[in-house]
Amino acid sequence: MKNLPLDHIGVAVRNIEEATRKYQELLGAEILHDEIVPSQKVKVRFLKHNNTKTELLEATEESSAVAKFLEKRGEGLHHIAFAVENIHQELSRMKNAGYQVLQEEPVPGAMDKLVFFIHPKSVGGILVEICQPRS
Amino acid sequence: MKNLPLDHIGVAVRNIEEATRKYQELLGAEILHDEIVPSQKVKVRFLKHNNTKTELLEATEESSAVAKFLEKRGEGLHHIAFAVENIHQELSRMKNAGYQVLQEEPVPGAMDKLVFFIHPKSVGGILVEICQPRS
Repeated sequence: MKNLPLDHIGVAVRNIEEATRKYQELLGAEILHDEIVPSQKVKVRFLKHNNTKTELLEATEESSAVAKFLEKRGEGLHHIAFAVENIHQELSRMKNAGYQVLQEEPVPGAMDKLVFFIHPKSVGGILVEICQPRS
Repeated sequence: MKNLPLDHIGVAVRNIEEATRKYQELLGAEILHDEIVPSQKVKVRFLKHNNTKTELLEATEESSAVAKFLEKRGEGLHHIAFAVENIHQELSRMKNAGYQVLQEEPVPGAMDKLVFFIHPKSVGGILVEICQPRS
């Protein structure tokens, strides 16, 4: 199969502005895009690094999965996202290979992408996002 | 300052071979390099993705920091590493900016790189590695 490219690294934060300041000062990252994703109950900011992107995730509601993550594990690395060209095909392939997908169909994600997630139990403790930009 | 490129994503695993199989099947990753890093008490394997690398880390001793990570948090995302051209200069810069560095001087890491780490408390819960390939 194709060797998939990393799309971004997702990071759970309590305060997007504070995190941005650190990433700018430490790593020279640039602000790329801000968005509220109501379906995930998060506010996100994409930061552009030299050769990849970070997605900062701040919960907008207590019931958000990101709020629960922060409560349980604190701030930190949340997920890694890989990009595909045919997300429906990949969802079927991964499901048939026995990976536990969290959505039965791809759902709208940030930056107008279609996305689905694979349960961390399926991938050695890592929440993996598979995404496809809409053309 | 320069916008630093991501060098790799570090992942703590209990079994490198099992993790490799999943990354190959799921993401099409390729095996790039195997190494034992005695100073860190880890066995590592670098996997090559389309546009980045993953470093799988398996503890070789109970006293390894990776063994303690696995005991406390289980398998999962462990660190992210960014590459620099002058690691001594960056260490000074980051230390002077108030970031808590874990080494006073860069130390030898995998793949003949010089590395140092920044404490997760300094960077919103993320263990950040700064590395420079030796030329």
